Amino acid sequence: MTERVVLAYSGGLDTSVAIGWIAEATGAEVVAVAVDVGQGGEDLEVVRQRALACGAVEAYVADAREEFASEYCFPALKANALYMDRYPLVSALSRPVIVKHLVRAARQFGATTVSHGCTGKGNDQVRFEVATTSLAPELKTIAPVRDLALTREKAIAYAEKNDLPIATTKKNPFSIDQNVWGRAVETGFLEDIWNGPTKDVYNYTDDPTFPPVEDEVTIRFERGIPVAIDGVEVTPLQAIQEMNRRAGAQGIGRIDIVEDRLVGIKSREIYEAPGAIALIAAHAELENVTIEREQARFKRTVDQRWTELVYDGMWFSPLKKSLDTFIEDTQRYVTGEIRMTLHGGRATVTGRRSDSALYDFNLATYDEGDSFDQSQAKGFIEIFGLSAKLAAARDEKFGNGVDFGVGSL
Amino acid sequence: MTERVVLAYSGGLDTSVAIGWIAEATGAEVVAVAVDVGQGGEDLEVVRQRALACGAVEAYVADAREEFASEYCFPALKANALYMDRYPLVSALSRPVIVKHLVRAARQFGATTVSHGCTGKGNDQVRFEVATTSLAPELKTIAPVRDLALTREKAIAYAEKNDLPIATTKKNPFSIDQNVWGRAVETGFLEDIWNGPTKDVYNYTDDPTFPPVEDEVTIRFERGIPVAIDGVEVTPLQAIQEMNRRAGAQGIGRIDIVEDRLVGIKSREIYEAPGAIALIAAHAELENVTIEREQARFKRTVDQRWTELVYDGMWFSPLKKSLDTFIEDTQRYVTGEIRMTLHGGRATVTGRRSDSALYDFNLATYDEGDSFDQSQAKGFIEIFGLSAKLAAARDEKFGNGVDFGVGSL
Amino acid sequence: MTERVVLAYSGGLDTSVAIGWIAEATGAEVVAVAVDVGQGGEDLEVVRQRALACGAVEAYVADAREEFASEYCFPALKANALYMDRYPLVSALSRPVIVKHLVRAARQFGATTVSHGCTGKGNDQVRFEVATTSLAPELKTIAPVRDLALTREKAIAYAEKNDLPIATTKKNPFSIDQNVWGRAVETGFLEDIWNGPTKDVYNYTDDPTFPPVEDEVTIRFERGIPVAIDGVEVTPLQAIQEMNRRAGAQGIGRIDIVEDRLVGIKSREIYEAPGAIALIAAHAELENVTIEREQARFKRTVDQRWTELVYDGMWFSPLKKSLDTFIEDTQRYVTGEIRMTLHGGRATVTGRRSDSALYDFNLATYDEGDSFDQSQAKGFIEIFGLSAKLAAARDEKFGNGVDFGVGSL
Amino acid sequence: MTERVVLAYSGGLDTSVAIGWIAEATGAEVVAVAVDVGQGGEDLEVVRQRALACGAVEAYVADAREEFASEYCFPALKANALYMDRYPLVSALSRPVIVKHLVRAARQFGATTVSHGCTGKGNDQVRFEVATTSLAPELKTIAPVRDLALTREKAIAYAEKNDLPIATTKKNPFSIDQNVWGRAVETGFLEDIWNGPTKDVYNYTDDPTFPPVEDEVTIRFERGIPVAIDGVEVTPLQAIQEMNRRAGAQGIGRIDIVEDRLVGIKSREIYEAPGAIALIAAHAELENVTIEREQARFKRTVDQRWTELVYDGMWFSPLKKSLDTFIEDTQRYVTGEIRMTLHGGRATVTGRRSDSALYDFNLATYDEGDSFDQSQAKGFIEIFGLSAKLAAARDEKFGNGVDFGVGSL
Repeated sequence: MTERVVLAYSGGLDTSVAIGWIAEATGAEVVAVAVDVGQGGEDLEVVRQRALACGAVEAYVADAREEFASEYCFPALKANALYMDRYPLVSALSRPVIVKHLVRAARQFGATTVSHGCTGKGNDQVRFEVATTSLAPELKTIAPVRDLALTREKAIAYAEKNDLPIATTKKNPFSIDQNVWGRAVETGFLEDIWNGPTKDVYNYTDDPTFPPVEDEVTIRFERGIPVAIDGVEVTPLQAIQEMNRRAGAQGIGRIDIVEDRLVGIKSREIYEAPGAIALIAAHAELENVTIEREQARFKRTVDQRWTELVYDGMWFSPLKKSLDTFIEDTQRYVTGEIRMTLHGGRATVTGRRSDSALYDFNLATYDEGDSFDQSQAKGFIEIFGLSAKLAAARDEKFGNGVDFGVGSL
Repeated sequence: MTERVVLAYSGGLDTSVAIGWIAEATGAEVVAVAVDVGQGGEDLEVVRQRALACGAVEAYVADAREEFASEYCFPALKANALYMDRYPLVSALSRPVIVKHLVRAARQFGATTVSHGCTGKGNDQVRFEVATTSLAPELKTIAPVRDLALTREKAIAYAEKNDLPIATTKKNPFSIDQNVWGRAVETGFLEDIWNGPTKDVYNYTDDPTFPPVEDEVTIRFERGIPVAIDGVEVTPLQAIQEMNRRAGAQGIGRIDIVEDRLVGIKSREIYEAPGAIALIAAHAELENVTIEREQARFKRTVDQRWTELVYDGMWFSPLKKSLDTFIEDTQRYVTGEIRMTLHGGRATVTGRRSDSALYDFNLATYDEGDSFDQSQAKGFIEIFGLSAKLAAARDEKFGNGVDFGVGSL
Repeated sequence: MTERVVLAYSGGLDTSVAIGWIAEATGAEVVAVAVDVGQGGEDLEVVRQRALACGAVEAYVADAREEFASEYCFPALKANALYMDRYPLVSALSRPVIVKHLVRAARQFGATTVSHGCTGKGNDQVRFEVATTSLAPELKTIAPVRDLALTREKAIAYAEKNDLPIATTKKNPFSIDQNVWGRAVETGFLEDIWNGPTKDVYNYTDDPTFPPVEDEVTIRFERGIPVAIDGVEVTPLQAIQEMNRRAGAQGIGRIDIVEDRLVGIKSREIYEAPGAIALIAAHAELENVTIEREQARFKRTVDQRWTELVYDGMWFSPLKKSLDTFIEDTQRYVTGEIRMTLHGGRATVTGRRSDSALYDFNLATYDEGDSFDQSQAKGFIEIFGLSAKLAAARDEKFGNGVDFGVGSL
Repeated sequence: MTERVVLAYSGGLDTSVAIGWIAEATGAEVVAVAVDVGQGGEDLEVVRQRALACGAVEAYVADAREEFASEYCFPALKANALYMDRYPLVSALSRPVIVKHLVRAARQFGATTVSHGCTGKGNDQVRFEVATTSLAPELKTIAPVRDLALTREKAIAYAEKNDLPIATTKKNPFSIDQNVWGRAVETGFLEDIWNGPTKDVYNYTDDPTFPPVEDEVTIRFERGIPVAIDGVEVTPLQAIQEMNRRAGAQGIGRIDIVEDRLVGIKSREIYEAPGAIALIAAHAELENVTIEREQARFKRTVDQRWTELVYDGMWFSPLKKSLDTFIEDTQRYVTGEIRMTLHGGRATVTGRRSDSALYDFNLATYDEGDSFDQSQAKGFIEIFGLSAKLAAARDEKFGNGVDFGVGSL
């Protein structure tokens, strides 16, 4: 029986050519799978028909938008996931859900191999392939660009020669990946890291330099996830879309960063993630109000490791799952409302309220009603500082104390 | 011989009254010490004369501004120090330098006790007292507000009765602390955390809603600290002042946060730190360009612990010193230039260049000149993902694998 | 109505006197509660009668041994909990279960205060009181030794004057605390840290210098906890008791350490924990066989924080609970058998087998059947080492490379 | 000009054959370099002559024993480096010093490539090659076993055909690596992890089951490193050798572990490291006496990361260097004496003394002279536990409090 390869199909030139390219190079039949993670663009039925026209034996389209929002984006929100404190893991989040659908299709259609359009120097090849072997250790992977020498020039020539129903325009100035959680742009003149981004780089956000009037929004969270915006209940997907729209109009969520790739090099990336950035700002402040201090301090370490793991393609790894249980436990009381002002690139929290807050007005206030017993502080300070005090006395004993230069006072 | 107490003197009502209050309660002579950390306000000679007029046996004024900038603010910059990812440690940084001068004065003037004007429910009492015992384990500490029942009302009555040369106006709506690294505002109506801040809360920053035209600035760093702005060499103090001026004019560095205090309660704080926030943004991106990935990942853990320790008053502790050596070692190559646009509350990096960058155009580019050997990726991915793959195979073996619901495809 | 105080009652001199002492000092009625955590010694009914004879209005005895073993000791086993890499948290584990019974009794008998016999310079006062406020924030706490000046001398005088049915012998040379997880000894000549422990210090273990013949034991674990020893099913309590007996006979689990107390001082402690140390050795090796590498590496960080928290009295804190969920998730496959040799102070693992092992003979072997594809290694190494290589090239560029002194070869 | 390859030469069959094998496969000249790291065995001049007889164009022998002890083993001692809490990094420490000499020789003899005898599935290939590119990014690497198909069978055939002056005995039952810090044994029947090690596995240690009489030793440390044993000054190398001898005679330092390799598989390893294990036990306890608590707690995290990095071959990486500065700073006061009893597999600390101890008898004692102010404890506990108390009150409010089942008391 002929081997089958499931190809992650975008509908673009490279993967359209890859259908035939893989078939010719390997003798296998190619099943094309397109997954909707909110990237917009063409109608997916059109994409599906194109795959068949390009030679796919089967073509399958999955609407994974709500699944992506609730099972991939929202765990990232609970982790306040910002790689290098900046990047909300846009592409890193979509790869595992796409792979899940590829593996599902592989089992459905009897394929032995999964294929993707990534190059050999980026993170996404790792994410695709590690996710695949972590879901289905028996499946093989192949990447035509990296493993079968499918260059852009060869793709254009192949498409023209075989009369494929796909435009063979010149190379885009940028390499772009987008989904409902955000948009990533790289290469081109951005590779000179002294160059600032030009206006045409952006698509999800308007220019924050000339914003419309301020937009005030109130987001209600339950156990760490947004459930209502301005009093209107929303699904996970709707929450992100609505915040993309409103924060995007204010130019919020533009990111320009030199980033540490998993493959050992640094690259320059531009991201847009208006909804993600606004939601993370809101979520983080609600955590400040509702999570106990030591839990919050350790959660930063967990959040960082979670983020690195997901960036590194380890979504389906055992450590990722264990970190998830920790994070989930911390979200029990992350319930309440955050009021934000969106304006000119800034998502600013101005109010928070929660029945499960640990903020206690009577302990915090310096006015009437103060219930904090200040007499306890003296003993606390003495014991809290005792080990440092003993170390300081030792420093003095050995002549390593601070030099005050008293003579020169 | 009469005991002597060194008092951290601000020139305001509370510490002016404290001079006599401490003397009466303890029988000691009071030495007033005012430390200039860039808080602005009255001329320090005026402050010094007032201390003497209020009964201090000695009054001493120290200009610690350059010392504060270079030895306290810049280590915080190297640590990208933001407590709870937001607060640049404004007050937490000034306490140790003030205490250093208090201890120096205690030794010069033969005092046995150090005193400060803090209440018994904040962080600053801890910072004052732990810093004192960590510099001079033999010194005692006393806090009139906490230990000698010096309330605001009693202070007003005392000042009027004793005709002290200080205004006894009603209580300010807010409690304020400021220095060159920033400004902190708390209490009053802000204690209702659903209330947004009003315009009168701010002083270091103009309203970002209506900014002047964009301001482009280029900052040159050497080994992690800014040494020139737009080509003009600056001292540490000048670097912060200049960035305060320019970033403040754009409304950059306003922070509104519910914060975990060391004493176990949550409090609501407003901060302004235009220079600090802009400098940290620039420094962090220069680190992205120049620090190796694993070093950068672990540095986040070190930075967080450093920040917590300093927030908690442990500036002079052994762990803080050891963390400093780690951080200092990472700054060896953090040299180069960052170009930023300051506008409407945003400090946006648009360019970076460094002779010591680890960013390598030839490895990063997808254009001609690409020197990255993509053939290595396949082996890397297989081994990098191997332990997760083995774990996945085990999950399958035990029926704990992912459920793909294939039947419903 | 008269206030009631629930006292943690041991049956010894100090707490026997405390019954009357508290009643006289506070006017409250005292309810005595003794909790059996496997400390051995007197029959608890005898203890209960003594409490009543000493003036308690109620006396209650709880057999918490299985609860302690399964809900306190075994979570510690899952965390491989060794404070400072040595101390298996003997007393730190028993305090929360004792407090749970004290609080339960307080609610049952209508008490408003919980009391314990700890001094003011140890860890246990913190563990008792923080556990109490973490279970029942409305309860107060009182410690007669610390708060009501109940010294040893006064206790002896009080007992003799009031004719209490308790021996008033001279002070023991040591302060001892024991339960089924281990035994702690401190004070006396051990406070000179150059002194070695004498033979009379030990009670749970025989001298390892002259052991009986080797004892081989096979322990079966399921999800991280021992369920059978040498093929015989055991309860949690039985597992610990059996291992105490057999490892104790071989002198295993003696610990002599200078320890960092929570209250800021260092103290010298002797512990005996034969069962705990042997079980932790077995459990840790089964984890090595069954837990994925990255999960195992991060678990060390989690285990350390868990151990510090529990040592510091934070058993019922939010962070502790969240760490528990992480640890529990890692134990899913920690199932299998460990064969150990117990002999002369050593608990040595000699064999391990598990259906859920990640150890894969075919990947590990260098003999026939080797399924590891060595050709992948070259690419892995190149990319794994790439960022360090780029950093090294920079070091050379700036003259900071390693000096090989080639001339002197 | 003919290319040159520097080969890490052991004198054994594989690397003796590799000289000619590499030359034939690549056309290069081979320079043999043997590095003495205390592995014992043949005289190195004999080894050197054999290399020349096998066809090396140059042969160079380096006595790196003191360098290895002081610059590689002792940093590991300061880090208490035990991978997976057990393995003292024996082979992982020797690889970087060997590579340093290989690179030095490469520069001296004009070689462009470094070669080693490792297979493609172990850690050592990574350590050799990453160390090489981290010291000399311009050098290439080649591994004949992995890259040039040099199997054991081919090696025997080649040696016999070419009449090489080396025995071609059958394969050893084990694969062994040893140096002054310890000895590693793997493969053979040990690959069945249920098999216990047999007596012939061991060479550095006598059987602990039948030990000689107890041996008491006193080790003096200065700044973290041993400088005298029983009052006799020792060099770093002598310190390790002497402790190997004495601890080895008592059977100390046998380790049997299933270990997580960097290449993603688990392997079973037997180690012997009598001196290393005894020295680490002594050093760790001296740290307990002299290092401040928070510094010690964070140092465990640093030690773990240091150990993982070195295990993973990252000795010359930037992060490793930064961690070194942290560790070095903590060792300032790790000076004093440790008395240990060595007996029957156990290295037991029985006494410690240090002028720079933070242990303070007057604070620790419960006898006369107690200087600890117990009245401070109440306030400390209240504030220390406050955030957990507030969280507990919230749990009660939401019905998530602990269930005491009071009715069933």
